[in-house]
Amino acid sequence: MDQIVSAPEMAMQASARDQLKSFVERIERLEEEKAALAGDIRDLYAEAKSAGFDTKALRTVVRLRKQDANERRDQEAVLATYMHALGMLDGADV
Amino acid sequence: MDQIVSAPEMAMQASARDQLKSFVERIERLEEEKAALAGDIRDLYAEAKSAGFDTKALRTVVRLRKQDANERRDQEAVLATYMHALGMLDGADV
Repeated sequence: MDQIVSAPEMAMQASARDQLKSFVERIERLEEEKAALAGDIRDLYAEAKSAGFDTKALRTVVRLRKQDANERRDQEAVLATYMHALGMLDGADV
Repeated sequence: MDQIVSAPEMAMQASARDQLKSFVERIERLEEEKAALAGDIRDLYAEAKSAGFDTKALRTVVRLRKQDANERRDQEAVLATYMHALGMLDGADV
């Protein structure tokens, strides 16, 4: 492993190495925050469960609301495209 | 659909409904933050790519570092278990 890594390692400039390190550290920090949020969400479902809610139904509700929101956004995007094509959104531009 | 939903809906107390609503909204807020972080991570990889880094190798590096960290933690946990079993961690307790 050492032999495989050492050759390209030597080929990388110090500045590129620092930049790489910085990217990796920034990614890791964000991944940690994301994992922490995933933990918070898990805790929240557990809290809901001990309050007597069915977590499976709760997950389904959250998913359905997200779908609805996405569909609404899609619908709005299509509508905006049509309205733009028909010059109905160009009031400010024209 | 309306018929299926209306019966259990009426069976739920107003206070439980508020509580349910609160759970759903809190979950959705955390899910949004998580999605935003996922977007930030994607952007960061894109930034690294345009800086000339190979994102596939970068993802592998991040994964390997995480594995190493997890293995180190696992090792430490095993070590602590053994040390505890041998009374090597009980200095303060005994």
